[in-house]
Amino acid sequence: MSLIGKEIQPFAASAYHAGSGDFIEVSEQNMKGQWSVVCFYPADFTFVCPTELEDLQKQYATLKSLGVEVYSVSTDTHFTHKAWHDHSDAISTLQYVMIGDPSQRISRSFDVLDEEAGLAQRGTFIVDPDGIVQAAEINADGIGRDASTLVGKIKAAQYVRNNPGEVCPAKWEEGSATLKPSLDLVGKI
Amino acid sequence: MSLIGKEIQPFAASAYHAGSGDFIEVSEQNMKGQWSVVCFYPADFTFVCPTELEDLQKQYATLKSLGVEVYSVSTDTHFTHKAWHDHSDAISTLQYVMIGDPSQRISRSFDVLDEEAGLAQRGTFIVDPDGIVQAAEINADGIGRDASTLVGKIKAAQYVRNNPGEVCPAKWEEGSATLKPSLDLVGKI
Amino acid sequence: MSLIGKEIQPFAASAYHAGSGDFIEVSEQNMKGQWSVVCFYPADFTFVCPTELEDLQKQYATLKSLGVEVYSVSTDTHFTHKAWHDHSDAISTLQYVMIGDPSQRISRSFDVLDEEAGLAQRGTFIVDPDGIVQAAEINADGIGRDASTLVGKIKAAQYVRNNPGEVCPAKWEEGSATLKPSLDLVGKI
Amino acid sequence: MSLIGKEIQPFAASAYHAGSGDFIEVSEQNMKGQWSVVCFYPADFTFVCPTELEDLQKQYATLKSLGVEVYSVSTDTHFTHKAWHDHSDAISTLQYVMIGDPSQRISRSFDVLDEEAGLAQRGTFIVDPDGIVQAAEINADGIGRDASTLVGKIKAAQYVRNNPGEVCPAKWEEGSATLKPSLDLVGKI
Amino acid sequence: MSLIGKEIQPFAASAYHAGSGDFIEVSEQNMKGQWSVVCFYPADFTFVCPTELEDLQKQYATLKSLGVEVYSVSTDTHFTHKAWHDHSDAISTLQYVMIGDPSQRISRSFDVLDEEAGLAQRGTFIVDPDGIVQAAEINADGIGRDASTLVGKIKAAQYVRNNPGEVCPAKWEEGSATLKPSLDLVGKI
Amino acid sequence: MSLIGKEIQPFAASAYHAGSGDFIEVSEQNMKGQWSVVCFYPADFTFVCPTELEDLQKQYATLKSLGVEVYSVSTDTHFTHKAWHDHSDAISTLQYVMIGDPSQRISRSFDVLDEEAGLAQRGTFIVDPDGIVQAAEINADGIGRDASTLVGKIKAAQYVRNNPGEVCPAKWEEGSATLKPSLDLVGKI
Amino acid sequence: MSLIGKEIQPFAASAYHAGSGDFIEVSEQNMKGQWSVVCFYPADFTFVCPTELEDLQKQYATLKSLGVEVYSVSTDTHFTHKAWHDHSDAISTLQYVMIGDPSQRISRSFDVLDEEAGLAQRGTFIVDPDGIVQAAEINADGIGRDASTLVGKIKAAQYVRNNPGEVCPAKWEEGSATLKPSLDLVGKI
Amino acid sequence: MSLIGKEIQPFAASAYHAGSGDFIEVSEQNMKGQWSVVCFYPADFTFVCPTELEDLQKQYATLKSLGVEVYSVSTDTHFTHKAWHDHSDAISTLQYVMIGDPSQRISRSFDVLDEEAGLAQRGTFIVDPDGIVQAAEINADGIGRDASTLVGKIKAAQYVRNNPGEVCPAKWEEGSATLKPSLDLVGKI
Amino acid sequence: MSLIGKEIQPFAASAYHAGSGDFIEVSEQNMKGQWSVVCFYPADFTFVCPTELEDLQKQYATLKSLGVEVYSVSTDTHFTHKAWHDHSDAISTLQYVMIGDPSQRISRSFDVLDEEAGLAQRGTFIVDPDGIVQAAEINADGIGRDASTLVGKIKAAQYVRNNPGEVCPAKWEEGSATLKPSLDLVGKI
Amino acid sequence: MSLIGKEIQPFAASAYHAGSGDFIEVSEQNMKGQWSVVCFYPADFTFVCPTELEDLQKQYATLKSLGVEVYSVSTDTHFTHKAWHDHSDAISTLQYVMIGDPSQRISRSFDVLDEEAGLAQRGTFIVDPDGIVQAAEINADGIGRDASTLVGKIKAAQYVRNNPGEVCPAKWEEGSATLKPSLDLVGKI
Repeated sequence: MSLIGKEIQPFAASAYHAGSGDFIEVSEQNMKGQWSVVCFYPADFTFVCPTELEDLQKQYATLKSLGVEVYSVSTDTHFTHKAWHDHSDAISTLQYVMIGDPSQRISRSFDVLDEEAGLAQRGTFIVDPDGIVQAAEINADGIGRDASTLVGKIKAAQYVRNNPGEVCPAKWEEGSATLKPSLDLVGKI
Repeated sequence: MSLIGKEIQPFAASAYHAGSGDFIEVSEQNMKGQWSVVCFYPADFTFVCPTELEDLQKQYATLKSLGVEVYSVSTDTHFTHKAWHDHSDAISTLQYVMIGDPSQRISRSFDVLDEEAGLAQRGTFIVDPDGIVQAAEINADGIGRDASTLVGKIKAAQYVRNNPGEVCPAKWEEGSATLKPSLDLVGKI
Repeated sequence: MSLIGKEIQPFAASAYHAGSGDFIEVSEQNMKGQWSVVCFYPADFTFVCPTELEDLQKQYATLKSLGVEVYSVSTDTHFTHKAWHDHSDAISTLQYVMIGDPSQRISRSFDVLDEEAGLAQRGTFIVDPDGIVQAAEINADGIGRDASTLVGKIKAAQYVRNNPGEVCPAKWEEGSATLKPSLDLVGKI
Repeated sequence: MSLIGKEIQPFAASAYHAGSGDFIEVSEQNMKGQWSVVCFYPADFTFVCPTELEDLQKQYATLKSLGVEVYSVSTDTHFTHKAWHDHSDAISTLQYVMIGDPSQRISRSFDVLDEEAGLAQRGTFIVDPDGIVQAAEINADGIGRDASTLVGKIKAAQYVRNNPGEVCPAKWEEGSATLKPSLDLVGKI
Repeated sequence: MSLIGKEIQPFAASAYHAGSGDFIEVSEQNMKGQWSVVCFYPADFTFVCPTELEDLQKQYATLKSLGVEVYSVSTDTHFTHKAWHDHSDAISTLQYVMIGDPSQRISRSFDVLDEEAGLAQRGTFIVDPDGIVQAAEINADGIGRDASTLVGKIKAAQYVRNNPGEVCPAKWEEGSATLKPSLDLVGKI
Repeated sequence: MSLIGKEIQPFAASAYHAGSGDFIEVSEQNMKGQWSVVCFYPADFTFVCPTELEDLQKQYATLKSLGVEVYSVSTDTHFTHKAWHDHSDAISTLQYVMIGDPSQRISRSFDVLDEEAGLAQRGTFIVDPDGIVQAAEINADGIGRDASTLVGKIKAAQYVRNNPGEVCPAKWEEGSATLKPSLDLVGKI
Repeated sequence: MSLIGKEIQPFAASAYHAGSGDFIEVSEQNMKGQWSVVCFYPADFTFVCPTELEDLQKQYATLKSLGVEVYSVSTDTHFTHKAWHDHSDAISTLQYVMIGDPSQRISRSFDVLDEEAGLAQRGTFIVDPDGIVQAAEINADGIGRDASTLVGKIKAAQYVRNNPGEVCPAKWEEGSATLKPSLDLVGKI
Repeated sequence: MSLIGKEIQPFAASAYHAGSGDFIEVSEQNMKGQWSVVCFYPADFTFVCPTELEDLQKQYATLKSLGVEVYSVSTDTHFTHKAWHDHSDAISTLQYVMIGDPSQRISRSFDVLDEEAGLAQRGTFIVDPDGIVQAAEINADGIGRDASTLVGKIKAAQYVRNNPGEVCPAKWEEGSATLKPSLDLVGKI
Repeated sequence: MSLIGKEIQPFAASAYHAGSGDFIEVSEQNMKGQWSVVCFYPADFTFVCPTELEDLQKQYATLKSLGVEVYSVSTDTHFTHKAWHDHSDAISTLQYVMIGDPSQRISRSFDVLDEEAGLAQRGTFIVDPDGIVQAAEINADGIGRDASTLVGKIKAAQYVRNNPGEVCPAKWEEGSATLKPSLDLVGKI
Repeated sequence: MSLIGKEIQPFAASAYHAGSGDFIEVSEQNMKGQWSVVCFYPADFTFVCPTELEDLQKQYATLKSLGVEVYSVSTDTHFTHKAWHDHSDAISTLQYVMIGDPSQRISRSFDVLDEEAGLAQRGTFIVDPDGIVQAAEINADGIGRDASTLVGKIKAAQYVRNNPGEVCPAKWEEGSATLKPSLDLVGKI
């Protein structure tokens, strides 16, 4: 079974909080009590990664307004994260938390560690306030992600969490109709 | 490590080919030599599933034009798939291949089998002509997928496959600029 | 040793109660405190199965009058059971409980799961009010069962349960003579 | 999985051929090349057993005419079988092969050995000319079997063997209609 | 080490008490508090066995007068023992306890079970009131035992038990001299 | 299963040939090609033992005339055997082979080694010319054996070996009638 | 035993060749056929590390003149190495090879990986042209190394390699006397 | 991971205290509560060793003034250490503690035991007052160490211990500037 | 490590006390609280053994006067020991304790059991009053021991036990000088 | 079983040949083809040891004349052996081979290594030209050996080797009578 529906595992790591310019300590506890987006990428100072992280930053305000915190993770150190933030035009725009995972523990526990390379795969995870993974998306190297799709998924997940007994159909958008699973619906859609 | 970058495992299954109305035998060989989208869902005659499968059908023509075959998979039998196709308005529109996986082998090998329930999780996989998984997306129950995002990912994956040495940045769209990873780009994005 | 004389194992499953048209939860506790017939078959929407289930329905009134509840089981879901009941002439006549066993646990615990196919074999079991299996009959695919033979067996089993110290000879019918095993009978029959 | 669809295991045993009054050696090879009924029972010189064996004898001519050989098996020796045949009115009518299984190997391989008691359970098996078990029926102690139901099952099994692609519905009788599984029949019965 | 000097193992079995014509339950407890002769043989309704059992019967009165109970054991059932007693001239004379050991447990615990055949070897054991085996004699098939030798052995065993510190020389007969092992006797006999 | 019917295990030992007054080497090969009596006892220079060995000597001529060689065995050395023969009145009459078994291997392979004491139990074995044990008799300490019973057993064993298809009833004596096991005898004795 | 005297293990890694400004592939083969200094440090963009690496650069010309190549190693990627070289005053002076070890394999094989942190300890190793480690020096965090001591050690190691049978005493400097171990020297120094 | 940062393991050994000319008992407790230098070498009465030990003695006064005790260790006995001290010009100057390690336990626990030869490698360790190894240096045979480098390392280690939050750069000398790791320094050196 | 310095293991055995002519029970407790000589030999009634045991007897008075008890041990029984004592000129002179070890346990625990032969090797052990082995001497077969050397060793062992801190040099005789190990003696002898 | 009668194990070691003043390599091959005395002792520069080694030297000429080579062994190095030889009055007289066993392999293979101390126990072994141990003598610390007893043992061992079929009685001296084991001698000594 995939990680969907499972609780995230404990971890402790140092991070660069891009918004405040501080080094902070982060654990799995920070990812509970709120919604989280956890975005893994292979390495600082590479090519697809900054465009993805910048794209994610563009959704940051929206995500914050939905009560979502954003964490990027690579197996680089928090020192390197700060240096990248200092020197890259794209990365300097980031305001969220950049976690350093040189011990590879977080990447391994989200099942995105390429053991051969020692680098994380391009996986994005939506974690609910109970620390349960609600959605996952992983792309091969060379294929960038589109952060805008996260917003819709989170709205659907939040709607389902707040409205037990209803489900969101495909392509559901906030405000449109949901479905109430019932005996009468069986085979009727 | 996730399934990304790994080859799909061998399987043999019966399927209902919705387009031709025939029962056919399918194996992992059918998923090689072309691009494939493999879409898992929990069960026939349920609620979110038909909207997702219908939504996927709406992309079918576009996907076919890109050389992509589509397979839906649940742990129901091919008999049940045909019956669903016969009786459901939404499902009757489908034209792609509906694989029956009552032995649970395919769902388990794609790591989306909920062993407790005996049902597949909502996972979508893009498989390249070598049988290598290029992208994966899995949602918790109750959150529908948006099939339209598949087209962009496949175009990016095809571009990268056809243009070794280039990578697609975040939110890349067909025709827009790609990146050529090089020493000079390090830290410059 | 076969299952005869052994207690049924715990399970929990969703079922379609054809008589009331409801989805219900069923466990091994439902099969205690009364007599039960448990009838496994390979798959909904197939060929021999509906004739067997319909044949079993024809004995349902008689079985109920003997204090027997009837459960059919396949590895299909309860959703599919309802759909089949909605659409099949033969199945629409059913009034007993149709258990969904997609997790394959019940079929495996009654030793009738074809692991290769993920489908149940055609086994019928008579369970007494203590949850002890009293009779079993299993046929290969393609050979239909005859539900009428169940009535006689259940009457014999009930007679033996109610009259400790007596046994029913071959072909025994209700009201005819039974045997009281005793020293004098040894070698005398 | 039950024994249905599996090949019988090798064995070698002494038997009393009631018809000829001889002691003979029997192996699993004797059960191939023809159809066989194998009827297990707990013990010679007991109560239900002779009525069952006598009942089976009454079907013997019919079974022979269908090309079926009959074997009864208990964990008694062939010596005891002969003595029982010599002294019991019911048993003296038997003409088929009475296998002695004091080593308990045959009973164990058909999964009907009560290891605690060292006696066989009341199981009847239909074996096809390839040595594959086609049907099984097992009753608890005290409940006699009805040999007449064997004839119908064997006719159905022979019909299916001789007419690949057809299946016999429930309660099928020789000469009545069978079913040809096809796509069109799905959900139509 | 052989069984000599070891305690018999627990068992529970049904037996035919030839003397009273009853079926009785027997356990290892019956073999304690008195002296016992336990006589194993291969099978009822065979050849050497009845002559041995009849020969043992001829010593029964003498053995009883010495406080010895006699048990015969084969892997046949107690039902078969009764039938044999009913029909055999030789066996009909028996008055002692004929234990049925179809579960093979007693034969195995006395180390006389021929596992290949499922039959007991021809072993006779003398058990003292503490359940300790004092003497054993086992013959190959085809060689009958002579029960009269048991009486002398039991007398010697009883003498030694009642007179600690004395031993019976070879061929000792009741009333003749015994030996008191002492330093002076070393090398003097 | 006891040793009856099994082949003796290989061994090599030094022995004192009492008849010739020589030390000789003995192996299991010496016990093949002729009949053998192997008589174990606890220890030289003790009490019951010399009376038993002397008693056995008294049968030696008869046994030789039947083609039987006699071997006594204890865990003493062959040196001690000679010394005992030199100094004991009873033992000085012996003419057969006295095997020394200080390595305890022969006693252990005949299952009569008391591991705690390092001494052999009082077991006597009849071995046929193929090295197969045909009869065994073991007594507790303090109970002497009677060698005269050996002659009868050997005659019976030799008769059965020479007359395949016949068996000796209990208390059989040379020249008296034997039994030919046949179908007609079943239950007739 | 420490790594001294052992051959370095195989590896493959990407590196930033600071001198040429190129990304290159490096393996253990590059460390054979010449002398090598391998200098591990915890992380790019930290504090003690750049002073150590700069200090090592100051010895680079001397080391090159002795036929020694220099490799720095951390668990950062070669991308980060280049970025550090681009942006740090101290690091921009480097001309040797900066190996990226994100898979942690090289650090682990030199026994300097802090598994908890995922970072290398401050270890420096001298490797001879056969790939054998000749000297090692490791400091705790916070204590800088002095690269100048490497030159003397390498000269001593090269002298010993070129002059078999001679050894360098403590504090040996090029040109000063060495020792020829001989019997006469035992206990004379 | 190397020994750096790990606590030394317990040991108990006899030693020759060169300064006082006494035999003393030493354990790992003696290496706590003060700074220690532990200097391993292969064997007494050899060649490089005395020059190294003498060189170390020349630093002894300085090291003592820094609160450091010095221990030399080889797998020779303390008897041999005394004899060497008595007879060697170089060794007779020593005043520190010469530990005998014939049981090889200390050498093995510091990972410098050449198991093949049974001799220690040339390793020097700096241990802090908590028994934690702060620095290690190991050379191949034939290459002498330079004890003067120890003083600088110890001063740096003591400075870092006494000034939490500061680190010593490469080539740091007492009194010169240290570094205070801080966010602002990242990438600025 | 050899047995020297180890405590003897528990045992219980029968022995012939040659001095008193009694059979006695002996255990390891008898070998504590006094000095003991334990003399193993292969077998009674053999060749070298009696000369060795007689030679040991000649030292018996001297040994007794030193507070030493003497035990001879072979794998013969105590019965055989008595017989040997009765009949052998050499052995009849013995007065010490002759232990019978037919269970081989004592010989095995002193590591002198030839497992192949089941006989003890020619080992002599000196055991102190704490049950600790102080000296051992073992010879191959065919080479006799000289008991007179025992006296000197025991005197030395007793001297060392009574005078802690002194040791006996080679060839030490009672009354001659011993050595007090001290620092000053190192290398001075 | 002790080492007596077993072949010595392979080894390779450096030694100081006291006679020639050379360092030599020694292996188990040197101990074959001639007789050897191997004398273990705890440590050079100690107390009992030199008196024992000097005592052994006094027998050296006699031993050489018997074709015996002498080897002393301790876990000290050959360097220390030479130093001891240089500085000790007693040791400077030695002319035989002093083996260094710092790897402890030889001491362990002769079962005299005190693993706790890392030192050899005081064991002396006589090895014959086939490398078979013929005699062993081991003393506790503090008790010196007497080398003069070696000569007698070696003469006896050589006599037995040269005169198969004869054995030396206790206290045998060259030229005195030996024993020829024969049947007639049993119990006659």
